[in-house]
Amino acid sequence: MIDLSRYQNIIGSEIAQINFPKAPQNLYAPLTYFLALGGKRMRPILALMGCELFDKDLNAAKHAALAVELFHNFSLIHDDIMDDAPLRRGKATVHSKWDQNIAILSGDVLMVKAYEHLATYDGQVLKSLLQLFNTTAKQVCEGQQWDMDYESATAVTIDQYIKMISYKTAVLLGCSLEMGAIIAGTNTTNRKALYEFGLNLGIAFQLQDDLLDVYADQNKFGKQVGGDILANKKTFLLLKAFEDADASTKTVLQNSLTNLKGSEKITAVKAIYAQLDIPAKTTEKMNEYYEIALQNLSEIKVPKNQKAPLFALSEFLMQREH
Amino acid sequence: MIDLSRYQNIIGSEIAQINFPKAPQNLYAPLTYFLALGGKRMRPILALMGCELFDKDLNAAKHAALAVELFHNFSLIHDDIMDDAPLRRGKATVHSKWDQNIAILSGDVLMVKAYEHLATYDGQVLKSLLQLFNTTAKQVCEGQQWDMDYESATAVTIDQYIKMISYKTAVLLGCSLEMGAIIAGTNTTNRKALYEFGLNLGIAFQLQDDLLDVYADQNKFGKQVGGDILANKKTFLLLKAFEDADASTKTVLQNSLTNLKGSEKITAVKAIYAQLDIPAKTTEKMNEYYEIALQNLSEIKVPKNQKAPLFALSEFLMQREH
Repeated sequence: MIDLSRYQNIIGSEIAQINFPKAPQNLYAPLTYFLALGGKRMRPILALMGCELFDKDLNAAKHAALAVELFHNFSLIHDDIMDDAPLRRGKATVHSKWDQNIAILSGDVLMVKAYEHLATYDGQVLKSLLQLFNTTAKQVCEGQQWDMDYESATAVTIDQYIKMISYKTAVLLGCSLEMGAIIAGTNTTNRKALYEFGLNLGIAFQLQDDLLDVYADQNKFGKQVGGDILANKKTFLLLKAFEDADASTKTVLQNSLTNLKGSEKITAVKAIYAQLDIPAKTTEKMNEYYEIALQNLSEIKVPKNQKAPLFALSEFLMQREH
Repeated sequence: MIDLSRYQNIIGSEIAQINFPKAPQNLYAPLTYFLALGGKRMRPILALMGCELFDKDLNAAKHAALAVELFHNFSLIHDDIMDDAPLRRGKATVHSKWDQNIAILSGDVLMVKAYEHLATYDGQVLKSLLQLFNTTAKQVCEGQQWDMDYESATAVTIDQYIKMISYKTAVLLGCSLEMGAIIAGTNTTNRKALYEFGLNLGIAFQLQDDLLDVYADQNKFGKQVGGDILANKKTFLLLKAFEDADASTKTVLQNSLTNLKGSEKITAVKAIYAQLDIPAKTTEKMNEYYEIALQNLSEIKVPKNQKAPLFALSEFLMQREH
């Protein structure tokens, strides 16, 4: 079992040191509240690990780690408004605890705070960090827009879906790692391989997320198992089912989504998934990306023992049951 | 009469060259639309003038000029949501033409685009630009929050009001000019004096805005004269009136705001303003800031003829009737 506490302690202590101004209270109190909700801090951990991989003191990547974590939290605050989500990590979202205007504006200022942490770097490192971060930030916004567009779209292809989850989620993992690598001063080949590792791992992780939402053990799963099915969410599983089903099965699937409710709906859709071998096909796709990720990591030219934490983290992420 | 067309042509051509991606259309089409609504482009003009002041080719400041203009437009798109404004420059706002989620997200990506233009600079110039820009961006958010807070606040002091308009509006003018100065490579004393010039000119401009809203010639004024009075907006005029009124006048003023409507309300409030000499007091306050601005400009150590465009611009801004 990988011990992430060493990284988490650094991040936790850095976040605890962020001292938002007292006023305007309606702008900054929501940020103190939201950052205290916690989370796995996976992105800042990746930034630290990406730096350490190249044998550089991970403290050098602290501000980059904070930048990605603050950016991630900015995107969550705004996404929660757009999704009208009442809860985040079991607690009230900013727009439901305060109001929507406060959530818009405190999200905005949090994005600026992310850039403040980037601006602590100098010279070519600063410039490279900014270029990578800007590209990634735009992609995260594009991914969120596609996600919203696809909710009402009639036809979404698997390729479109993979691109959407890449942009919405996976690119920020790649970016976090590569920022660590930039700070460590490694060469472009290593940097790009590390980015690809994060990107592919992120896609695999998101596909696993789709799978767990249907097949997780409810006792270990934080959300309602089957929630995606109940919400007609266009996950990899549903899109693949529509792709592989014959005309009559397609009709049954569409009718189940439209007319059924509750556990009956979940059971009906799962029956079609089983009939079409969707769990195995999803696992296969997930493993495809996971294997590419491991290949990316193995290609990076550093002593193998320095890669151990990232291999361990990959394994840990892909073996979760919740 | 100052000829701004030389600067406006550069800005216009730069903005026309921004090529947003075709997709996701719902993310980028609103930005193309919103930037085409125009506006005076005062902030990017200031960035160009701030550079030219120190005898440097103003083209060097083009990207900084774009950064402040894109940031300004980001803040307008989000402010329009918060203020629930249906129109901007006579056209539908982004959230009313598309929807609120699209306005949030396209605003977000526009802020990132602003940082992309900053990231074209290098070394210490990049770092200085970022630090100034980040500080300013936070202040603009804080100013907007105070503005919203003050809508429902019972007591707002003149000092609080001046700080609010400074943050919401004036700091970005100072920032635009100083960014030009940073790019021109002048010394810190000149930079700071130029920033202060923009800040104080911005405050004077905003006070003039408050004054014009009540006393402009309706034939030359773009908005409804008296609109601030009808909306019970806490402008400098209203706050000063409450500050200077005796108890019985205060009661009359409060009753007029609460109970009267339309032209009757405007007439009643204007009568109290006249009685308390509010127009002259506002003009005096405005001139106070304008004089400091001119003083700031005169202290900058460059040949006087190089300052001519900024003196002319100041005069132009403070003589508007609309």
